[in-house]
Amino acid sequence: MKAPLYNRFVLPEAQRDSLNVVLVSPRNPLNIGAAARAMANFGLRRLAVVAPFDPTWREARSAIGAPELLTNTVESATLAEAVADCTLVVGTGTVTRRKPEQPVVPLSDLASLVSQELARSGRVALVFGSEKHGLTRDDLSYCQLLVEIPTDPLQPSMNLGQAVAVCLYELTRRAESSPATPVPSATSAASSGRLDLLAEVIEEVMQAAGYSPRAMQPSNRHDLRLLLRRLSLSARDNRRILGLFRRILWRLNHIRR
Amino acid sequence: MKAPLYNRFVLPEAQRDSLNVVLVSPRNPLNIGAAARAMANFGLRRLAVVAPFDPTWREARSAIGAPELLTNTVESATLAEAVADCTLVVGTGTVTRRKPEQPVVPLSDLASLVSQELARSGRVALVFGSEKHGLTRDDLSYCQLLVEIPTDPLQPSMNLGQAVAVCLYELTRRAESSPATPVPSATSAASSGRLDLLAEVIEEVMQAAGYSPRAMQPSNRHDLRLLLRRLSLSARDNRRILGLFRRILWRLNHIRR
Repeated sequence: MKAPLYNRFVLPEAQRDSLNVVLVSPRNPLNIGAAARAMANFGLRRLAVVAPFDPTWREARSAIGAPELLTNTVESATLAEAVADCTLVVGTGTVTRRKPEQPVVPLSDLASLVSQELARSGRVALVFGSEKHGLTRDDLSYCQLLVEIPTDPLQPSMNLGQAVAVCLYELTRRAESSPATPVPSATSAASSGRLDLLAEVIEEVMQAAGYSPRAMQPSNRHDLRLLLRRLSLSARDNRRILGLFRRILWRLNHIRR
Repeated sequence: MKAPLYNRFVLPEAQRDSLNVVLVSPRNPLNIGAAARAMANFGLRRLAVVAPFDPTWREARSAIGAPELLTNTVESATLAEAVADCTLVVGTGTVTRRKPEQPVVPLSDLASLVSQELARSGRVALVFGSEKHGLTRDDLSYCQLLVEIPTDPLQPSMNLGQAVAVCLYELTRRAESSPATPVPSATSAASSGRLDLLAEVIEEVMQAAGYSPRAMQPSNRHDLRLLLRRLSLSARDNRRILGLFRRILWRLNHIRR
């Protein structure tokens, strides 16, 4: 007979504020509350909602045991803002219709990646799309990875609150056993906001250099966002490249005058 | 860059009807529907509800993608009936207040036990208590094991639909890699119903033998149920012991006349 285990799980205090849940365009406040409840169950605190459908979402009664969490939830207009300070942004969804532009990892494999990122003092965002259509192609362009919950192909679409619970169960369970020593900050990843800043400057360079016709700009912006996320840039490299492109931009503008 | 994975998960057809979900005294039909939806997501089909609070539960709109599953859900008055044909009955809950009478296993360890039982053609029930107070001590006396989801001690109580989703994610994920060859039926476990039958005969023997005062009978019945489940009786041994106690009972009754 095995010895009983009494709640042996506690997410390390240092990591509780570093794993963020982001809900994009959630329609039903009950699902926002359910996400908050699951976060409290698994020891998390930082929830962000992007462009919620119902303005009264903060009153969700389903946030049992998590009223404070809901009070502290940050609302933003865009996903870019919500993940600006994150170093690893992971989109969620079932890959059925279209071929994704990011690497797809099964949920069980994501855990070790997230542990590593948290262990080196990174900040991770787990992004969930709206109940109706999930994350859009534009939302996904802010994500380095796409995680997939292994569901039945005949019925892949999960309830939002249940999907959040399943992901957090898997991710926080592994966080326990991750190394506690942070790696020196020289190797820390660039945040999403820093990548966006770099993308802006590169885009200005493209325009200043007459790189592509105006009609192509939205498409280029999208591809650029994806490219920068594929590179897994460190914060230091991001600064270097930004410096370079700023210099190029100055030069281009200087020549034209 | 990893190759994308397109829904690589399918629960083996042979196991889809062998992992049952049982909801005891669920109050909110939305939670029954949410459990049904999670089951469909993870490829399961057999749901049972015991003494549901709301008689209109079968109309739950939250059972998205699982209307057939809800139609086929079996309603029973007692947990004993609901798990009568199961060879491994697992209770769910957070172990906080009282010391449990069964071995407690963390969810991640339960998966291999369930895989084994399914692989040798057993039938497994995963039993969830009501939203308000979870499983009662009496409910738990029908369970061989108690599984615990590792949650934060400050907020251990999960939403019913979310708890079902987390458990099924963990259990069906492992079922994939379980051996497909069934072990000969000689070693198959006794079903819950057969254990109850044995318990009844033993109880009659106790009474016939004047084993304990009448006031002790409910308590003895409870302890007996637990004892039989701790033994992990095979179907064959269960038959043998039943034969023995029937013989003893006949003898006791014969002597008294």
